[in-house]
Amino acid sequence: MYSFANDYSEGACPEVLEALISTNYNQTDGYGLDEYCETASDLIKEKIGNKDIDVHFVTGGTPANVLAMCLLKPYEAVISVESGHINVHETGAVEATGHKIIEVKGKNGKITVQEIQDVVKNHIDEHMVKPRMVFISNATEFGTIYYKEELKEIYNTCKELGLYLYLDGARLANALVAQGNDLSLRDICDYTDIFYLGATKNGALMGEAMIIKNNKLKPNFRYLMKQHCSMLAKGRVIGIQFLALLKNDLYLENARNANIMAQALKYIFKQLGFKFYIESPTNQIFPIIDNNLLEKIKSRYTIIEWGKYDDNHTITRFVCSWATRKSDIQEFYEDLLAFIRQERIR
Amino acid sequence: MYSFANDYSEGACPEVLEALISTNYNQTDGYGLDEYCETASDLIKEKIGNKDIDVHFVTGGTPANVLAMCLLKPYEAVISVESGHINVHETGAVEATGHKIIEVKGKNGKITVQEIQDVVKNHIDEHMVKPRMVFISNATEFGTIYYKEELKEIYNTCKELGLYLYLDGARLANALVAQGNDLSLRDICDYTDIFYLGATKNGALMGEAMIIKNNKLKPNFRYLMKQHCSMLAKGRVIGIQFLALLKNDLYLENARNANIMAQALKYIFKQLGFKFYIESPTNQIFPIIDNNLLEKIKSRYTIIEWGKYDDNHTITRFVCSWATRKSDIQEFYEDLLAFIRQERIR
Amino acid sequence: MYSFANDYSEGACPEVLEALISTNYNQTDGYGLDEYCETASDLIKEKIGNKDIDVHFVTGGTPANVLAMCLLKPYEAVISVESGHINVHETGAVEATGHKIIEVKGKNGKITVQEIQDVVKNHIDEHMVKPRMVFISNATEFGTIYYKEELKEIYNTCKELGLYLYLDGARLANALVAQGNDLSLRDICDYTDIFYLGATKNGALMGEAMIIKNNKLKPNFRYLMKQHCSMLAKGRVIGIQFLALLKNDLYLENARNANIMAQALKYIFKQLGFKFYIESPTNQIFPIIDNNLLEKIKSRYTIIEWGKYDDNHTITRFVCSWATRKSDIQEFYEDLLAFIRQERIR
Amino acid sequence: MYSFANDYSEGACPEVLEALISTNYNQTDGYGLDEYCETASDLIKEKIGNKDIDVHFVTGGTPANVLAMCLLKPYEAVISVESGHINVHETGAVEATGHKIIEVKGKNGKITVQEIQDVVKNHIDEHMVKPRMVFISNATEFGTIYYKEELKEIYNTCKELGLYLYLDGARLANALVAQGNDLSLRDICDYTDIFYLGATKNGALMGEAMIIKNNKLKPNFRYLMKQHCSMLAKGRVIGIQFLALLKNDLYLENARNANIMAQALKYIFKQLGFKFYIESPTNQIFPIIDNNLLEKIKSRYTIIEWGKYDDNHTITRFVCSWATRKSDIQEFYEDLLAFIRQERIR
Repeated sequence: MYSFANDYSEGACPEVLEALISTNYNQTDGYGLDEYCETASDLIKEKIGNKDIDVHFVTGGTPANVLAMCLLKPYEAVISVESGHINVHETGAVEATGHKIIEVKGKNGKITVQEIQDVVKNHIDEHMVKPRMVFISNATEFGTIYYKEELKEIYNTCKELGLYLYLDGARLANALVAQGNDLSLRDICDYTDIFYLGATKNGALMGEAMIIKNNKLKPNFRYLMKQHCSMLAKGRVIGIQFLALLKNDLYLENARNANIMAQALKYIFKQLGFKFYIESPTNQIFPIIDNNLLEKIKSRYTIIEWGKYDDNHTITRFVCSWATRKSDIQEFYEDLLAFIRQERIR
Repeated sequence: MYSFANDYSEGACPEVLEALISTNYNQTDGYGLDEYCETASDLIKEKIGNKDIDVHFVTGGTPANVLAMCLLKPYEAVISVESGHINVHETGAVEATGHKIIEVKGKNGKITVQEIQDVVKNHIDEHMVKPRMVFISNATEFGTIYYKEELKEIYNTCKELGLYLYLDGARLANALVAQGNDLSLRDICDYTDIFYLGATKNGALMGEAMIIKNNKLKPNFRYLMKQHCSMLAKGRVIGIQFLALLKNDLYLENARNANIMAQALKYIFKQLGFKFYIESPTNQIFPIIDNNLLEKIKSRYTIIEWGKYDDNHTITRFVCSWATRKSDIQEFYEDLLAFIRQERIR
Repeated sequence: MYSFANDYSEGACPEVLEALISTNYNQTDGYGLDEYCETASDLIKEKIGNKDIDVHFVTGGTPANVLAMCLLKPYEAVISVESGHINVHETGAVEATGHKIIEVKGKNGKITVQEIQDVVKNHIDEHMVKPRMVFISNATEFGTIYYKEELKEIYNTCKELGLYLYLDGARLANALVAQGNDLSLRDICDYTDIFYLGATKNGALMGEAMIIKNNKLKPNFRYLMKQHCSMLAKGRVIGIQFLALLKNDLYLENARNANIMAQALKYIFKQLGFKFYIESPTNQIFPIIDNNLLEKIKSRYTIIEWGKYDDNHTITRFVCSWATRKSDIQEFYEDLLAFIRQERIR
Repeated sequence: MYSFANDYSEGACPEVLEALISTNYNQTDGYGLDEYCETASDLIKEKIGNKDIDVHFVTGGTPANVLAMCLLKPYEAVISVESGHINVHETGAVEATGHKIIEVKGKNGKITVQEIQDVVKNHIDEHMVKPRMVFISNATEFGTIYYKEELKEIYNTCKELGLYLYLDGARLANALVAQGNDLSLRDICDYTDIFYLGATKNGALMGEAMIIKNNKLKPNFRYLMKQHCSMLAKGRVIGIQFLALLKNDLYLENARNANIMAQALKYIFKQLGFKFYIESPTNQIFPIIDNNLLEKIKSRYTIIEWGKYDDNHTITRFVCSWATRKSDIQEFYEDLLAFIRQERIR
C-alpha cells in the first residue's frame, strides 16, 4: 500500500533529521528560549525583510489557530469560510476558547471582500458578537491559492473595518511555489496582521512558525502559548527543524517537490479524461473517480474520499509531499492504466 | 557553561533518535492512529499488566494535565497542593478550561488524606465548586515520592468521597527507580484513575503517555486531545519514541542514571557540610548555598535559584538527567572544591 | 409614540405585581429555596402531569439557553437553525461556554429531521465536534410554531441518534394558544429532554422556568445556575411571579391576548392588501411595508425593521403582548388609514 | 421563626415597590436602554461627582464580579483574599470564564499592600499567570470596612504595579454609613478602577450598579453583559429600583437601619458577656455562642452557623437589613434572656 492520503505520512526530511542529530547533545534553555529558536527567528525576519515582527514556534496548526483566536476579547468573533479548518476540522477548538466563528460561503475555499463587508454590516449591536478577525488559509483546504490583488483587497478591507487578518499557513510554502502564485513571503506579512508558516506538512516532525506583525497582538504571546498547550519543554526541537528548512530555502524546495508531484498526478488523470472537483495548483488534487475504479485503486493506494459526486462517482483527494518520488507517480500511473484496463474488460 | 537547570536541556537519548531515523520513511496514518502508537500502547498495557486501560500519546505535561481536568463537569474542581505544577507553573491552563483548583498546603509537596477530607467536608452546597478530582505528582515538584501505603490510602479516600485520583507522572520513572520506592507501574495504575508516564523529561524529544483506567473517563478522549492542542499530525513521532524507551526498560534506565547522578551530587554537597531545603531521593536536589559561593558556581554552571533561604543563603535546585555523565559530576566536584577554596581565601 | 417593538416594553401584568406586593414582607430562604418557588414548581409539575421532572427558575432566556448548553461535554455541539436565538442574538454566549453551534438552514425558522440526520452523518470523527443536542424554539424567531407530528418526529430522531432535544420556550405560551396548535404543555415535556417556559415575554418582570425531564441532565443543575449568573439571591421573586402566572392559567391568558392582538393587526394589514414575509400564528407578524409609508408609521410607532425586502419595501416586525389593548390596535388602524391616505395624495 | 440569616430574606423596600408600580405601564426600550436606567445612571454620576464614568445595571453580585474578571486577558489573574466571595461562594464562576484567582491570606477579610506586592514579585514569567487585578469587597465578608488611607494605599500600589483595582460593593452602602467610616462614594470611585454599588442586599428585588472609571475598561461592556447572562430584557426593572433607592439617599437610609439594628444586637450580646469572632461595624455580626444555647435560639430564629469555635461553642452570623425593626431586636433580646435563664436552670 502506498499512501497519497496526506502530506504527513512520513517522518521528517533528511536535512531536518540530521539537524536534530547534530545538535542533540548541546545543552540549551527550555521552552523555545534557546539559540536555535533565536537564529531561526532571525532568519525568518530576514527572509521576510522585516525585523519588526515577532516569531514564535508552536507545536502544530490547531495550536497556532487557537492562539490567534485567543488574541480576541470574549465577545469578539472570527469570520471564516464554511470549509475553513477552524470551522470543521479542529473539534471546536476555537469555540472551546470562547469565540464564535461566523461562517460565510466563500468561493473555491476563499473568502470574498463582499462577504466580509456583509458580516460586519449585519452585526449591529451588543446582542450579537463583534466581528474582529478574518481567518483565511493559503493554500486553502481545496488547494487553491490567493493572488496578490485578492489578499491586498481583503487586507485593506480588514483595515477599513477594524478587523485583524489572520492567515493559516499550514501549506503556505506550497502556495508560494505554486504555478501562477504572485505572492512572496514578504507580501504575506505585509498583507496580514498575523500568520503562520507551516512545517508539519512540509518535512518537519512537527512545528509551525507564528509570525506577528501587528504590534497590538504581540504582548505576552508566550503566556498564551504556555496556557494553550502549544509550547514544548524542548522548544529547541522546533527551532532546529526550522533552521534546517530555512537553509537554502529547503522549505520551498520541499513544497515544490510536493506540488510538482501532485501536478504530475493531475496531468495523468487529465490525460486519461478524468474530471476534477476543483482546479488547484498546489499539492492537493481532487479527481472525480468512478466507484468501481476507485475500489481497485484503494486496493493498493490510500487516498481520501472527499465526498459523493454522483451515484457512480466519488470526489477524491490525492496529496503529495516532500517525500513523494517520481517513481511513486510512475508506479501509480502504471497501476491506474492497469486498473482502467481491467475495468473495461469487466 | 554546564547546565544542571533541568532534565530537558538536551535533545533525545540515542536510542530514541535511532528509532526515529530507522522508521522515518515508513508511511503511516496520522494523529496517533499508526502501528507504532498501537504497539507502544500494547507494550504499556503489558508492562502494567492490565489490558483494560486506554493509552493515548500527548505532546507534553501541561497538555496531559489540562486533558485530565477537561474530564470534569463545569462546576467540578480539582484539589492540589499549593506547589502543584497545575497551580503554579502552567499559566492558569486549568482555569482556562474553566475549572477551579482548590489548593491545600501539603507536606513536602505531597497531599494528605486529611486535607482531601477537609476540602470535601467544607464544600457543602451549590455556592461552592464541587471537589471531584485530586491532583498529585510523583515524583513531586520537590523531588519527593509517594509510598505505597500513602498512595493506597489517598486512592481509597478518593473512592470513598467520590473523587477521581489523577497522577502527573512527568518524572514518574524517576520515582519508580528512586531509593526506597515501593511502588510499581502496576501499583500506579491500580491506585489512580488516570495518570501519565512522562517521556519529555526522560530522554524523548517530547511526549507523554496518558493512561486511563477508570472506564468513566475513557469515552471520546481523542476529541479532547484534538480540541486541546495535544495531538500531533505525525502522532507516530511520540509512539516511536515510546517504543524505544520501553524496549529493555530504557525509560527506567534513563531515570536511574538521572537519579544516581543527582544523588551523587547530593553526596558531594553533604560531605562538604551543605544543608538541604528538602530531602529528595530522585533527580532533583535542593542544596542551600552561600550567596558568594553561588555567584562563583553560576559563573560556570546553570542552576535554578529556588528561593531565598536567609540573607546570606539561597535554596538552589540541581537536576540531573539521562544525559548527565559521571564526568560532569566529577568536574563539578572539582570546581566546587576550587570555588570553596577561593571563598575561604577571600 | 406607541411601541409594537416587542413583548417586553412594559413592566409586569397586574396579578404579578400584586403577588410581589402581597408577599413582600414574608421572610424566606434565598436563592430559590423558598416555599414560593417550591409551590410554583409543584404547580408546573401538576400542569404537565409529570412529577418526575425538575423545575428551576432562572433569570432570563439567554441564561436558560446557556445552562442547557453547559450540560454538554467540551467537545459536544448543539445543532440550531441559522436564525436560532443562540446563534444570532446572544453575543456568542453559547460559544463563551466552549460549545460550537452547528448551523443548518431550517425552514420558516424550524429545523427538519433531514437536517439533523445530515449533521450527524457528516460528523464522523474526533477532528470534528460531536453533535449532541438539538436546539429548537417554539414559537420560533419568526413566530411560527411546531406541530405535534413534527416535534414527535424530531424527538424520535434525536433519540435514535443519541441527541438531547432542548426547546427554548421564551414564547412557548404564545405557541400553545396559537390557532392551529395541537401541542399541550405535557406534549412539550414528553417530546423534549429539557425546555423552558418563558415568563419575561409573557407578563413577568423577569424569569423563566427550566424544566428537565431527562434524568441524565438533572444532577447538580443548581451548581450550573450559580456559576452561570442565572440565580437571584431573592430567588423568590421569580417563584412568586410564576405562582401568579400559573393561577387560573394566566400565562395562557396573557399569551392569548398577545396573539389575538397581533392577529388582529395582521387582519388589518391583509385587508389593506399588504403582503407578509412569513405566515405566523402567534404574537409576532412580519408585514412588508412601502418605505414612504413606513417613515410615516415610525413617526408615531416604534416597530422593528427586520430587513430590506426590495428597493422600495421593508420587512417589518410588529409584536403584541399581554399589555396590548384593543384600543391600541384600533388607534393604529386609524393612523394607518390616515398615513395611507396621505401617501396617496402626495 | 424569624430570620437573621441574611439581608435578602424579604422582598423590596416599599419605595422600590411603589416605583415599580407607578411606572409599570410606561413603554420603554429593552435591555437597559430606557429613560429610567439613563436617569438613574445620571444620578449616580452626580452623587459621585464624576460625569466621566460609565454606569451599567446588572442582575446580581456574581454577575457583576464575573463581568469585572472578563475584562482581563486569558492569562491574566485576579488577586483576592482567601475569604473573598469570588474565591469561595461563586461556584467557580470566575474560573469558568478562564481566569485564575490568586489567593492571599488577608487580615480581617481585607487584603494588605504587602500581599499584593509579594504576589506580583513572585509571578515572574510566562509559566505563571500574570496578576492584573485586585479584588476587594467593602464591607468585606466579615462585615469589616476599609479606611481611606488603606484604600488609597492599595490603589496607589495597584497603579504602581499595573494592576486594576476592583471593589465588590454588595454591601457598599453598609460600609459607607458604618461608624468610623471615612470613605465617601466619590472616594470609592477615585480609589478604584471599577466597582459596583449593590442593591440586592439593600432593599431592591435584585440589581447592582456597575461603575467603571478606568477608560480602558469601558469599551463594549454591554457585549460582556449580554454574553454573561447579566442583562434583563426588562432592564428598566433595575433602573427604576435604583431611582427609588437613590432618591433622598434612601440607599444610605436602608443601610443605616441595617447597621444600627445589627449594632444593637451586638450591644445586647456584649452586655450579656458574649465574645465575638471578629469586630465588625456594619450589618453583620459574629457572636460566639454556647452550643446548648444555640439550639434554643435556633428553635425560634434562623441564623448562620459560621464555623466551630471550640467543642462547646459555635461562631454564628446575625445579619440585619433595611427590613429589620426595633421590635424584632427587642423580641430577640427577650427571647435570648429567657433562653439563657432556661440554660442556667438546666
